[in-house]
Amino acid sequence: MKNSIITISRQYGSGGREVGRRVAQQLDIPFYDRELIVMVAKESGLSLEYVEETAERGTNSLLYNIAMGGQVPGLQMSGQYMPVAEKMYIVQTKVIREIAEKGPCVIVGRTADYILKERDDCLNVFIHAELDFRVQRVIAEYGIDEKEAHKTVQKKDKGRAAHYRQYTDQEWGIAQSYHLCLDSGHFGLEETARLICSAARGG
Amino acid sequence: MKNSIITISRQYGSGGREVGRRVAQQLDIPFYDRELIVMVAKESGLSLEYVEETAERGTNSLLYNIAMGGQVPGLQMSGQYMPVAEKMYIVQTKVIREIAEKGPCVIVGRTADYILKERDDCLNVFIHAELDFRVQRVIAEYGIDEKEAHKTVQKKDKGRAAHYRQYTDQEWGIAQSYHLCLDSGHFGLEETARLICSAARGG
Repeated sequence: MKNSIITISRQYGSGGREVGRRVAQQLDIPFYDRELIVMVAKESGLSLEYVEETAERGTNSLLYNIAMGGQVPGLQMSGQYMPVAEKMYIVQTKVIREIAEKGPCVIVGRTADYILKERDDCLNVFIHAELDFRVQRVIAEYGIDEKEAHKTVQKKDKGRAAHYRQYTDQEWGIAQSYHLCLDSGHFGLEETARLICSAARGG
Repeated sequence: MKNSIITISRQYGSGGREVGRRVAQQLDIPFYDRELIVMVAKESGLSLEYVEETAERGTNSLLYNIAMGGQVPGLQMSGQYMPVAEKMYIVQTKVIREIAEKGPCVIVGRTADYILKERDDCLNVFIHAELDFRVQRVIAEYGIDEKEAHKTVQKKDKGRAAHYRQYTDQEWGIAQSYHLCLDSGHFGLEETARLICSAARGG
């Protein structure tokens, strides 16, 4: 396989995670989504919830930093006063690089595209869809009303864009930040996964 | 074929035009690039050069407007003082819609994606590549030096973005403005064309 590591960034509600799961299944390679969060939480000593939520916003949580006393167990290299979010990012970088070293896989989110940018075996994918498609998926998945779903989708995307901007020198959602961008609303999740597999296999 | 009309927008130097030509060849459908410019020039009475250049910049050419006396032959519907660029856009819209009505085809540039947005049989593609890849292609094609090539690429992209912004309610180069975005520098022109054909055929 030409592109053995597939990173997937996605708009909230686009079904990017589900597409990633199908790609991993079809290519028979490991899929890192929730597993990655568990690994980062375990290695950093931070809560699962914190690790999960921090990729959805651009600013550090001051309250959490104070609560954690600015320290993360097991991170000897970092100063005592380094913000928790920065420490978590260092652990995340280490974990993602270790995962990539192990061999072909699919990694969802966590700026993995940027963290692995020195590698030449990555296929960096961005999945998006029209707002209405995403709102309907969020309503179906979480059972919230349309107004709330609209608000959630827009807030999450804003947070992801800010987080991406903060930790990379690229722009989230701009075509040239990725090798391949697909509209999952246009293609459908199955066809989106098929096209990514085709691009990864290289013909 | 699921997506019978393929519109291709592209960064300058990305090889998007060549990719479009290959897609049309592989799918055995008409290819509109230079042909489209000729048709618009003929129908509007404007010069080939003006029609060609106007898609590369965001603002109207005042001097050309004055030179043309604000009139375009054959455009009864528009007022005498309508800017030439606007008149040309009306003709271009008409020509592109007529082309699409004829059947499957590939159309390069000219905001065809936006002009045909009411149709449900379009596949809107954006082709981009890293700056260095594009500069090297421009040097090879036009025999200009690296500094000049850099300047040309950046100026052309800026103009195309401004033109797209002026005539559509979408942003040029943002993933969500298109169904499919591909990095031709990463995939190579042949593989980029293959992936577009695969997406158009729908599996």
